[in-house]
Amino acid sequence: MNQSTDAHTSLPQPPYYAVIFTSQRTSEDDAGYAAMADRMEQLARAQPGFVGIDSTKNSSGFGITVSYWDSLDSIRAWHSNAEHQVAQLRGKEQWYESFQLHVSKVERNYAFP
Amino acid sequence: MNQSTDAHTSLPQPPYYAVIFTSQRTSEDDAGYAAMADRMEQLARAQPGFVGIDSTKNSSGFGITVSYWDSLDSIRAWHSNAEHQVAQLRGKEQWYESFQLHVSKVERNYAFP
Repeated sequence: MNQSTDAHTSLPQPPYYAVIFTSQRTSEDDAGYAAMADRMEQLARAQPGFVGIDSTKNSSGFGITVSYWDSLDSIRAWHSNAEHQVAQLRGKEQWYESFQLHVSKVERNYAFP
Repeated sequence: MNQSTDAHTSLPQPPYYAVIFTSQRTSEDDAGYAAMADRMEQLARAQPGFVGIDSTKNSSGFGITVSYWDSLDSIRAWHSNAEHQVAQLRGKEQWYESFQLHVSKVERNYAFP
């Protein structure tokens, strides 16, 4: 439950929560976007209730990031984080052509091997 | 709720279920893997209770596929599908270095724009 460079550490016991963020990048501002994405991941990892993150993106700029949290309250707090709010606004204005968000409760997990 | 080529159609009303599959490919059998992946997506779309699918993978072979289903019963039926079982076995033997699976209940969703 980490990025590709450090994939698949041990899983926590359910229940916990998964925020599934699917997005299509615009072709604008690659450098600014990359800096924001790094900063947001660093900031998310420091939030109370953060459990883990998986993220990947193809060469067309279609990405999926799943962040895992211990509770809905932790997700709400992260959503309301001031620096994150600025990034969300900028995302809608410039970085994302479209995105979808699913908030879901993890009931079961499985890892191989 | 589709692949990158047809991303972000209208979202259904929660609750429904999301199966989050994160995987690291081996470097073996790209052609066989691609054929299986296409076939499995086609087969999943034809299953009762299928709602949608989002899938992406980076150049290092780290992929995330989220499939959406109307119920846990539909997920169980898909898991038990005979052709899917063969693919799962082959996945463990050859195609995946590692993977994780989360079964989760979608409680809330949001789309932009």
